[in-house]
Amino acid sequence: MTNNVSATPLHDRVIIKPAPAEQKTAGGIIIPDTAKEKPQQGIVVAAGPGKKDEPVTVKQGDTVLYGKYAGTEIQIDGQELLIMRETDILAVLS
Amino acid sequence: MTNNVSATPLHDRVIIKPAPAEQKTAGGIIIPDTAKEKPQQGIVVAAGPGKKDEPVTVKQGDTVLYGKYAGTEIQIDGQELLIMRETDILAVLS
Amino acid sequence: MTNNVSATPLHDRVIIKPAPAEQKTAGGIIIPDTAKEKPQQGIVVAAGPGKKDEPVTVKQGDTVLYGKYAGTEIQIDGQELLIMRETDILAVLS
Amino acid sequence: MTNNVSATPLHDRVIIKPAPAEQKTAGGIIIPDTAKEKPQQGIVVAAGPGKKDEPVTVKQGDTVLYGKYAGTEIQIDGQELLIMRETDILAVLS
Amino acid sequence: MTNNVSATPLHDRVIIKPAPAEQKTAGGIIIPDTAKEKPQQGIVVAAGPGKKDEPVTVKQGDTVLYGKYAGTEIQIDGQELLIMRETDILAVLS
Amino acid sequence: MTNNVSATPLHDRVIIKPAPAEQKTAGGIIIPDTAKEKPQQGIVVAAGPGKKDEPVTVKQGDTVLYGKYAGTEIQIDGQELLIMRETDILAVLS
Amino acid sequence: MTNNVSATPLHDRVIIKPAPAEQKTAGGIIIPDTAKEKPQQGIVVAAGPGKKDEPVTVKQGDTVLYGKYAGTEIQIDGQELLIMRETDILAVLS
Repeated sequence: MTNNVSATPLHDRVIIKPAPAEQKTAGGIIIPDTAKEKPQQGIVVAAGPGKKDEPVTVKQGDTVLYGKYAGTEIQIDGQELLIMRETDILAVLS
Repeated sequence: MTNNVSATPLHDRVIIKPAPAEQKTAGGIIIPDTAKEKPQQGIVVAAGPGKKDEPVTVKQGDTVLYGKYAGTEIQIDGQELLIMRETDILAVLS
Repeated sequence: MTNNVSATPLHDRVIIKPAPAEQKTAGGIIIPDTAKEKPQQGIVVAAGPGKKDEPVTVKQGDTVLYGKYAGTEIQIDGQELLIMRETDILAVLS
Repeated sequence: MTNNVSATPLHDRVIIKPAPAEQKTAGGIIIPDTAKEKPQQGIVVAAGPGKKDEPVTVKQGDTVLYGKYAGTEIQIDGQELLIMRETDILAVLS
Repeated sequence: MTNNVSATPLHDRVIIKPAPAEQKTAGGIIIPDTAKEKPQQGIVVAAGPGKKDEPVTVKQGDTVLYGKYAGTEIQIDGQELLIMRETDILAVLS
Repeated sequence: MTNNVSATPLHDRVIIKPAPAEQKTAGGIIIPDTAKEKPQQGIVVAAGPGKKDEPVTVKQGDTVLYGKYAGTEIQIDGQELLIMRETDILAVLS
Repeated sequence: MTNNVSATPLHDRVIIKPAPAEQKTAGGIIIPDTAKEKPQQGIVVAAGPGKKDEPVTVKQGDTVLYGKYAGTEIQIDGQELLIMRETDILAVLS
């Protein structure tokens, strides 16, 4: 799998390839089944330059957690992706 | 097709010529048919100067993705166009 | 027709003489008949000085597009005019 | 008629003596009878010093247009007056 | 009557002793009986230091007008007082 | 009674020990029985460092007035306390 | 128990391991059973770098109080954790 996509997000937006719903990461994230909003995980495939004096801090290849309803679905080059603002990203997994 | 229009957007507004609904770009964007808001694509035909200390970053000729309900419809010189703020643009396709 | 009016807008407000509903400009603007808010066009007859560090960028005589519901109706010197903030103006026609 | 009142507005507030409802100014303002909010006119009798780095730009004696529902009614020295923020004033008539 | 109270307002808050409801000031303020919110008057008994770069501009002893519903009722040293932000004060009477 | 507690508020938060409901202070505060929100009084037991460029101005031991519904109840070391932002404090009694 | 987790919060977010519901801390915090929102306590397991000019002030190992409904539940490395903004943290216990 290559994460290169033919699109550049504007400003503080980030394009993410969501992990399959059942996927377990190396870090062992399991999304608990509760009433609260469940964060999802995915891999950053492209990040914008950020806003004035606030560069984006995630980078291509980062595995990130984000809110279940964050972002907008897009399909680029046959991949189903999400585009969201960096502030919708909760954490970077390592 | 020429993208020149006889109008200049104010501030951070951008005039976009929407792509036909079925169009596929060189980059192969296909809008998935889901319940979420689907982004649309189009070509920038004119861009304003930006706001104070925040110049507009898209330029004439850029192919861009934007939210389905973004912008206001206008007709200039016989073309059906949209005018929206640059922050309504999600990404530039390459 | 003279566009001089005996009023000076405050701050970032602009006084506009709306074009007759059926008018076509030199630039050929035709407002499409759709469900979306249709922009209107008119001529700037007076502009305020702007806000701190943000001078108004339209000037007397400019033909402008603005949102259908923008501004407040006033009558000055027998002319039916609109007064609105410059941010309610979408574009300057050329 | 003297416009002196025994009160000083705070910050960016302005005290206005409303014109009688039928009054026509030298400039010939007639308020059109439409469904939109109709601006009113009056004379500035006192103006505050403004806010930090934003001095008030209207002065005593100016004839101004303001929104129909702007301001708070007060009676000072037997005159029925309005006190409002300067941003509620639309234009100065000349 | 002494206006000294054993309390110091924080930030931009001001303590006011409301005038009796029927009182007429030297300046002759009479509150008109209309449907609009009627301003009240009172005397400043204590003022806070203001906010960063914005010192409070009213001082102890000033007779002020304020909105009918402004502030919070408190009793200090047997006096019925109001404590409000300075921005709730409309004007200083002279 | 010692006001030391084993907790440090973050940012601009303050921990307060509420005065018993019937208590009268040296300053003679009596809360009037009206329909408006009644302020309460208490003693500051711990204060945060403040926000950037805005240090907290109350200090441990200050008797303060605050809105009836301000803050969150906590129990620390057996004392029933409130934790609130400093902006919820109306005045310092002396 | 180790508090190391394989995740780094973004910006001003903090990852917290909630204390068991009945747990009493060394500081003796007992959450009172009232109608108000009850704060919870937990231990900081990871903190983001903060926002521009506002570094996060809590650090790994801190025992903190936070609002009952603060944060989003996540599971990392088999631990049930919360991720929240630092401004949702009320105080650090000592």
